[in-house]
Amino acid sequence: MNSKVKKLAEGKNFAYVATIRKDGSPQVAPVWVDHDGENLLVNTTNNRAKFANIKRDPRVAVAIADSANPYNKVIVYGKVIGHETQGADKHIDRLAKKYLGKDEFPWKNPKEQRVILKIKVEKAVE
Amino acid sequence: MNSKVKKLAEGKNFAYVATIRKDGSPQVAPVWVDHDGENLLVNTTNNRAKFANIKRDPRVAVAIADSANPYNKVIVYGKVIGHETQGADKHIDRLAKKYLGKDEFPWKNPKEQRVILKIKVEKAVE
Repeated sequence: MNSKVKKLAEGKNFAYVATIRKDGSPQVAPVWVDHDGENLLVNTTNNRAKFANIKRDPRVAVAIADSANPYNKVIVYGKVIGHETQGADKHIDRLAKKYLGKDEFPWKNPKEQRVILKIKVEKAVE
Repeated sequence: MNSKVKKLAEGKNFAYVATIRKDGSPQVAPVWVDHDGENLLVNTTNNRAKFANIKRDPRVAVAIADSANPYNKVIVYGKVIGHETQGADKHIDRLAKKYLGKDEFPWKNPKEQRVILKIKVEKAVE
């Protein structure tokens, strides 16, 4: 993960994650993002299309643009190399702090389980 | 195309267009967008990955978020039902007016041909 990807993932910027649906067609969704120093981290739930998609085919493309200047952007091609429920509630709280300025994620739904997706960056283009 | 898709496409908002690469993996790119009353219109060039992708597989997913409030968004699933070079230079100038406030697209490259992609909206989810 190069410094540009890191910096854009550290900013209050949305990541647009593209995945592949069962019929081979694309899906795309804006999500909050950060990183663990090595991989991009995205927080989703166990009942989202995105999660079903990456379990079937872990290949993703992720666009991150600087919210202050959308022409400063990066497109990442990579793979979801792990998905973890452990720590996922704390992670969504950290993201809520970054994106909403709130200590806790305000839209918790007890029917959903949060999941952290670890995205290995294989290629980044500007 | 419902009124929410229209409104978001009329705003100074980026569209994140996901397409399928030759190996079946996803691609995603931020683009300028508008509509013709029926279809979303995106302006690309004949040498972009995106254009090669949609000629092979016309299925796309497009996320458009309100730049003033990114939580106001729509995800469109659709197909590229046409691509036209005629009028594409004027179209990119109109988009330059909308996005940059300039009468002419400032990044013209004589080695590229501009192409308008017409995206038929088959489904829109919020």
